[in-house]
Amino acid sequence: MPANLTYNGKLWLEADGQPIFGPGRAELLERIRLSGSIRQAAQEMNMSYRQAWQAVAQMNAIFPKTVVFSHRGGKGGGYAEVTEFGKEIASTFREFHQRFHEFLQRTNK
Amino acid sequence: MPANLTYNGKLWLEADGQPIFGPGRAELLERIRLSGSIRQAAQEMNMSYRQAWQAVAQMNAIFPKTVVFSHRGGKGGGYAEVTEFGKEIASTFREFHQRFHEFLQRTNK
Repeated sequence: MPANLTYNGKLWLEADGQPIFGPGRAELLERIRLSGSIRQAAQEMNMSYRQAWQAVAQMNAIFPKTVVFSHRGGKGGGYAEVTEFGKEIASTFREFHQRFHEFLQRTNK
Repeated sequence: MPANLTYNGKLWLEADGQPIFGPGRAELLERIRLSGSIRQAAQEMNMSYRQAWQAVAQMNAIFPKTVVFSHRGGKGGGYAEVTEFGKEIASTFREFHQRFHEFLQRTNK
């Protein structure tokens, strides 16, 4: 292979054949888990709150179980919590994404 | 993993970080090789001749060597020939694409 040619790719998770989860959503769940806030996670990723909220709503609707519980209002202005199922989806995805990354590195050697 | 969740992905080849070759172009080169004709290959893939011709011109311009020689006009109406370099690119891509497919299958087990 000429030196300027490299293999690249993408990996994502599908529910009933529809793309539902990729690296961006894995990062979103991780940031929600750490901050306890969809708004905070969105800001960190330069997403609008609306985009982040819609991503969460779509995942909750399409995955067989809830991935994020959100509680609006109250003294602290609400908070969000990644469920055990959400954590499992994110960590399994990261593990396979890491293996995929290693596959690409081997391919480019 | 719930049964309706599956991993899917894409693999492509980049030249200097720009996507240049994927499953569609691998198929195009294979069909040009078999038919000796860009027009025939395009028809078989439901592409316009213009699209196929532009794909070939882009590959020839960006890859470090020519992938398809085309000879226009003459008695037979011209013909196209995949170079040794083009055949090597296509067969190497198919090999890695097959391994990638196997990676996805293992991931979905």
